[in-house]
Amino acid sequence: MENGDLRTRDVVRELKSTGTASRVIGLTGAPGAGKSTVTSALVRAFRARGQRVAVLAVDPSSPFTGGALLGDRIRMQEHATDGGVFIRSMGSRGQLGGLSAATPQAIRVLQAAGYGVVLVETVGVGQAEVEIASAADTTVVLVVPGMGDSIQAAKAGVLEVADVLVVNKADRPDTQATVRDLKGMVALATGDWRPPIVPTVATSGDGVAELMQALDRHDAWLDESGERARRRLARARDEVTAIAFGLLARRLTVPDELAETVAAGGCDPLTAAERLLAAAGFTF
Amino acid sequence: MENGDLRTRDVVRELKSTGTASRVIGLTGAPGAGKSTVTSALVRAFRARGQRVAVLAVDPSSPFTGGALLGDRIRMQEHATDGGVFIRSMGSRGQLGGLSAATPQAIRVLQAAGYGVVLVETVGVGQAEVEIASAADTTVVLVVPGMGDSIQAAKAGVLEVADVLVVNKADRPDTQATVRDLKGMVALATGDWRPPIVPTVATSGDGVAELMQALDRHDAWLDESGERARRRLARARDEVTAIAFGLLARRLTVPDELAETVAAGGCDPLTAAERLLAAAGFTF
Repeated sequence: MENGDLRTRDVVRELKSTGTASRVIGLTGAPGAGKSTVTSALVRAFRARGQRVAVLAVDPSSPFTGGALLGDRIRMQEHATDGGVFIRSMGSRGQLGGLSAATPQAIRVLQAAGYGVVLVETVGVGQAEVEIASAADTTVVLVVPGMGDSIQAAKAGVLEVADVLVVNKADRPDTQATVRDLKGMVALATGDWRPPIVPTVATSGDGVAELMQALDRHDAWLDESGERARRRLARARDEVTAIAFGLLARRLTVPDELAETVAAGGCDPLTAAERLLAAAGFTF
Repeated sequence: MENGDLRTRDVVRELKSTGTASRVIGLTGAPGAGKSTVTSALVRAFRARGQRVAVLAVDPSSPFTGGALLGDRIRMQEHATDGGVFIRSMGSRGQLGGLSAATPQAIRVLQAAGYGVVLVETVGVGQAEVEIASAADTTVVLVVPGMGDSIQAAKAGVLEVADVLVVNKADRPDTQATVRDLKGMVALATGDWRPPIVPTVATSGDGVAELMQALDRHDAWLDESGERARRRLARARDEVTAIAFGLLARRLTVPDELAETVAAGGCDPLTAAERLLAAAGFTF
């Protein structure tokens, strides 16, 4: 399915009928924020509740292939002998639709395989953050103290996508200042849900219980507010669109001659695009 | 054109016939790497050569709208009274194809307006880096000393897209270690062009002359090696594809009922995608 193989079509069709939905939690943050450590701590916490957990580690900068094996192995160490944990690294670069196309289908498979919790972890500045939020029920954004620049840059995106804000590595000196900054941001947020700010030291486990509480509160709010239904509707829409474009991409390959004509200035790109569509049976 | 207004079609068609191509230089790097400062230093250097310079500051995490005005104003200060400099901030989030769809068309307009140099600046971890590289003749990747995690995370992407590597803020203590790391990466690169590593302190102007030399050497190499023609062909292909998908996106809106059926599990997303395409006149 990661490879976009057409033979997976029949698999997708069968999967529609499987039982209850998994709880999908997205984790994103800048490189170095400790995403893997927090993810690992959450795996432990959900396992302690007896739930089966799948982790999708999506790397938007890696080519879209069958998983980053080295990454899998490193991440697997702690949970390697636990049959209730499945971990998979996926690249999404070069795939039309990127995360939007691949992630929901992977989640669908994991759900069918009986993983009640799916953690989707991705490095994020920009686009990836937004896409992970569209695939998840709850999105956790990680920041670390003292990364003022990154927080500044991420502000707009963070406010829009974060359901829970984690200040990881909270044993660092400027933790209080970072928490204060984030509180100031959250105070400006509109909407019914105000993202809680949870300090953690994931390496020692400090704050993980509080993070689990925050996740549970958000999960309950999703049902009370009707937001879960809204998000799942938006997700269905995104998934259908991404698949439709994926199907079209196979048809819409720009022929060499047309690309050469455009590069040489013999045809403007818009006219070329219309010719391409016309050749594929589309008329405007 | 940023807004994807259909009336710009005729403008695009007219622009095909305009004279010489602009030199397009992409600059990317993590938040805090000093992209704006380096860009500003390059504007100064190209202006000293008498060239007209346009800057496109693309923010993939901002919604796709008519420019981040505050950003424009802050960036404009140094060059505000210089008629030979044009600066524009663009968001690209939510635009199908993102950077790939909007940037080449913006470059086309700037070229037609007589800007011999176009600097495209974007924050990048992941996707954005790759997309900027596809729109630029020369891609500059900025790193700062001591950002080990970021470098680690960006390694795969950096090696593939960087034509020139800049270690900015090179007055920091771990500069030598960072340069050594990058040299180790570059030594593994295959291909005819080995990216030079240029230390700069853009705030003081140190290293900017060396950066200009590195840019000129790469520009000359693009012609000698035939790589410029290859890149422009690839760019034409990407641009035509992005425009074609943009045209299709107007047709392929998932109807509410279909999204609801998928969300409720009454139809799998692949079948829904096929229905959507069939309704739009596409058959498989």
